[in-house]
Amino acid sequence: MKNKLYIIKIGGALIDDEELLEQFLEQFSEIQEKKILVHGGGKLATTLADKLGIEQKLINGRRITDKDTLDIVAMVYAGGINKNIVAKLQQKKCKAIGFSGADANLIKATKREDAEIDFGFVGDITEKSVNKKLISKLLKLELVPVFSAITHDKKGHLFNTNADTIASVIAQALSVKYDVELLYCFDKEGVLEDVDDPKSVIKNISEEEFSTLKNEGKLHKGILPKLENALGAVKNNVNKVFLIKETELKKHIKNHHEGTEICL
Amino acid sequence: MKNKLYIIKIGGALIDDEELLEQFLEQFSEIQEKKILVHGGGKLATTLADKLGIEQKLINGRRITDKDTLDIVAMVYAGGINKNIVAKLQQKKCKAIGFSGADANLIKATKREDAEIDFGFVGDITEKSVNKKLISKLLKLELVPVFSAITHDKKGHLFNTNADTIASVIAQALSVKYDVELLYCFDKEGVLEDVDDPKSVIKNISEEEFSTLKNEGKLHKGILPKLENALGAVKNNVNKVFLIKETELKKHIKNHHEGTEICL
Repeated sequence: MKNKLYIIKIGGALIDDEELLEQFLEQFSEIQEKKILVHGGGKLATTLADKLGIEQKLINGRRITDKDTLDIVAMVYAGGINKNIVAKLQQKKCKAIGFSGADANLIKATKREDAEIDFGFVGDITEKSVNKKLISKLLKLELVPVFSAITHDKKGHLFNTNADTIASVIAQALSVKYDVELLYCFDKEGVLEDVDDPKSVIKNISEEEFSTLKNEGKLHKGILPKLENALGAVKNNVNKVFLIKETELKKHIKNHHEGTEICL
Repeated sequence: MKNKLYIIKIGGALIDDEELLEQFLEQFSEIQEKKILVHGGGKLATTLADKLGIEQKLINGRRITDKDTLDIVAMVYAGGINKNIVAKLQQKKCKAIGFSGADANLIKATKREDAEIDFGFVGDITEKSVNKKLISKLLKLELVPVFSAITHDKKGHLFNTNADTIASVIAQALSVKYDVELLYCFDKEGVLEDVDDPKSVIKNISEEEFSTLKNEGKLHKGILPKLENALGAVKNNVNKVFLIKETELKKHIKNHHEGTEICL
């Protein structure tokens, strides 16, 4: 039987809220099973770029990561945020160890190629990008990897990569060795029928139901890529995938069913 | 017989010079024995602080690390610089893995206590601060640890710590298991009799000679703390300690005697 492994992704809004982050990290550190944390960015990178007069570049509404922006996100994500989370987890006796994808070649990306838009320093990844052998060894050493959303190409370049995707591909890669449960933590109770009604949680979403909801325009823009990454995980052997509220992590671990489960 | 382990420290001037850094990392990556890199800061943190209007605070001529400054150095050192060095080493097939002292509790510091000055977020360390057991395990996995000069107190706080001291205490801690050679790389050929004459390298400096040179005012300010850290290492069982020119690394590894050797 495979050992249980939780892969838990948190986003920017949580990171920006010191009190909420503290509460989440407390719950995270209490998980007894093996675990990995993946974190996104938050407002700090944008605030810093603004202060430094680095303009956010958009082409056709898509964000471009130019060199100046990359330098900022690498510093903020892999330095500031990552090391602060690690230090806070260490305080809670959780053996956190922070990484970018460049470290030990843990996540090797390829530069996003697009015929129409040059996205700049944006890295795309698949399940094969992940150094699962080494991550397994680190988990065996009882360490708790904490990933920032920075990857590299093994040609000396760092990349900005979507944190939801990182969580999904790590989950896929490690499902060979572990019984993986992937949790996307965010500020809602789950996927909601009615975005203003926290009680309208959709308990399960299958691939078919996802298509229907999407076609009916019932899924707001922010949740779409998250659900696509969640479905990608389920389709590639990840045992369980949920979208849950950040503050419900402990309850979910205990009850095994808070929020929305994504299934085939 | 113990395995050889090189612990190599590089400073800010090298990091600020892209071409020189590239040349150094090439030489570093060619070292066949086990190795650890420790890097300092460079001008980036100061430039960034200036741009953001964060003033450098000095009390009695000593630099103070207030919270804003700490946030900057944590980002720049553990994020920007560390991950860029790691990515460049990975390109050169060196299995680099970047760390702050918070990661896996690798270096646990205590806040500097001083009756007269509150230095702010500055961490002091000794040989006992180092998680030598885990570093050994990482070395056994053929990884090459790359340390930034950020530590933590296991109470949730990050600290700014002198990179020369980090290199020295890691060398001391690992000398139990390894035949350690500690190399301080800088922009001079070694410790010079006459600072304007690169040929005036002092080949050996003992503790006694250090005292004499110091008392005679022959050591310029910048080199004093480096020599003190070097002597601290020799006194605590580090087998060999040298101060060498950054571009002479390869030659030193081959000839075993470039620059200035520090001895008892």
